[in-house]
Amino acid sequence: MLVKSQVKYIQSLGHKKFRDADGVFVAEGSKIVAELLQADHIELIQIYATREWLLENQFLLAGMKAPVEIESKELERISFLTTPNQVLGIFRKPVFSFAEEPGGVTLLLDNIQDPGNMGTLIRTADWFGVRRIVCSTETADVFNPKVVQSSMGSIARVEVLYTDLKEYINGRPGTPCYAAALDGEVLEQNRRMSKFMLLVGNESRGIRQELSGLAQRRIRIPRKGSAESLNVAVATGIILFMMQEV
Amino acid sequence: MLVKSQVKYIQSLGHKKFRDADGVFVAEGSKIVAELLQADHIELIQIYATREWLLENQFLLAGMKAPVEIESKELERISFLTTPNQVLGIFRKPVFSFAEEPGGVTLLLDNIQDPGNMGTLIRTADWFGVRRIVCSTETADVFNPKVVQSSMGSIARVEVLYTDLKEYINGRPGTPCYAAALDGEVLEQNRRMSKFMLLVGNESRGIRQELSGLAQRRIRIPRKGSAESLNVAVATGIILFMMQEV
Repeated sequence: MLVKSQVKYIQSLGHKKFRDADGVFVAEGSKIVAELLQADHIELIQIYATREWLLENQFLLAGMKAPVEIESKELERISFLTTPNQVLGIFRKPVFSFAEEPGGVTLLLDNIQDPGNMGTLIRTADWFGVRRIVCSTETADVFNPKVVQSSMGSIARVEVLYTDLKEYINGRPGTPCYAAALDGEVLEQNRRMSKFMLLVGNESRGIRQELSGLAQRRIRIPRKGSAESLNVAVATGIILFMMQEV
Repeated sequence: MLVKSQVKYIQSLGHKKFRDADGVFVAEGSKIVAELLQADHIELIQIYATREWLLENQFLLAGMKAPVEIESKELERISFLTTPNQVLGIFRKPVFSFAEEPGGVTLLLDNIQDPGNMGTLIRTADWFGVRRIVCSTETADVFNPKVVQSSMGSIARVEVLYTDLKEYINGRPGTPCYAAALDGEVLEQNRRMSKFMLLVGNESRGIRQELSGLAQRRIRIPRKGSAESLNVAVATGIILFMMQEV
């Protein structure tokens, strides 16, 4: 059973202000919730789930805080999805430190706005083994429910941090920085590297000039047809596929 | 000025049934509308735009049906966007024929459901010069306003048709068909071709077995990290980039 104050509280977590105040976020759907429950560094605050889900997933909740059993109709009241899916969890936001670097490739996002693109970028990074994404402060919040959703559970594995990207890049003179740009050099197949930064920019404005000037090289994906640009997650996937050491 | 019946009519075009009945679709935003107005094979039915847009874009409308000037507030009433953008156009749906084949690479979509993915697939195809996309009948409608939006104008250039994919593939024994599959062979760099079909599948269920069995080869993108899958548009972009003859 849900009480009104719970409904109000969960709905409030659609806003960054309230997520930040309590240091928590919402994740929904059986697959994503299961991945988060199994992630060592993500702490469960509360699960709201249908009886059916709870029966099937008892093993996931062993030793954790008792879940709240709710009806499908109640789930509709708290869900951020158009088609609510059995379970909603509130989790503590993980905190990552710039002091520890996971190594390998770091993806840098300059003012990515669309939550769907942001989630797909996290999922793409996860596929290619990128363990850290560093975002400009104007980039969409990784804990926006739509980002969590489209990341398909990859937020359980990829560290996402926010900072001034100019300072971040300048602070790492030993690590090459590449920028994806429509006017760069053609992406080549023979330049695989184990450690670099890949900088990608806003969906309509690209990378801010003050940042793109910091990159050692600007690279582009050759175009055969007529689209003005590629989707930022598609472009990132192609570059990671091509440049990262296997 | 908008009358109530116009508002009702435009809203109805959010539904496939009504788009099909009249053979029309809606496109919004300055960039997309401009591209459609300049496409030879797409006929304008009606433009609804703010005075500001009309003044700036007179040249686009020369010789075309007189536009309807509306206020920003009126645009909000008919727009399918969360942030309406100056202009909305109703266009006649272009009709493409299976009898004429544009050649080159054909992208085959098996039951793609998400309008955002569908639009991004069209835009990605357009970037790589793919001129035809053939979809299973259960695939999202290319004229869904969200698909039109996320295709970013590429629907003005890429032909999208719907049919039984099994019959389509079987009817082209001379054209190799490749299927993107998580359990396929690793995508290689040395297999560029000028003419082939690339089959990609539903976001959660993949390609139906009856179709994937028709492919000469199943290919996969090597994974370094832990995400369960790649977004379908990201995967398609990587395969097109790697396999298509430059």
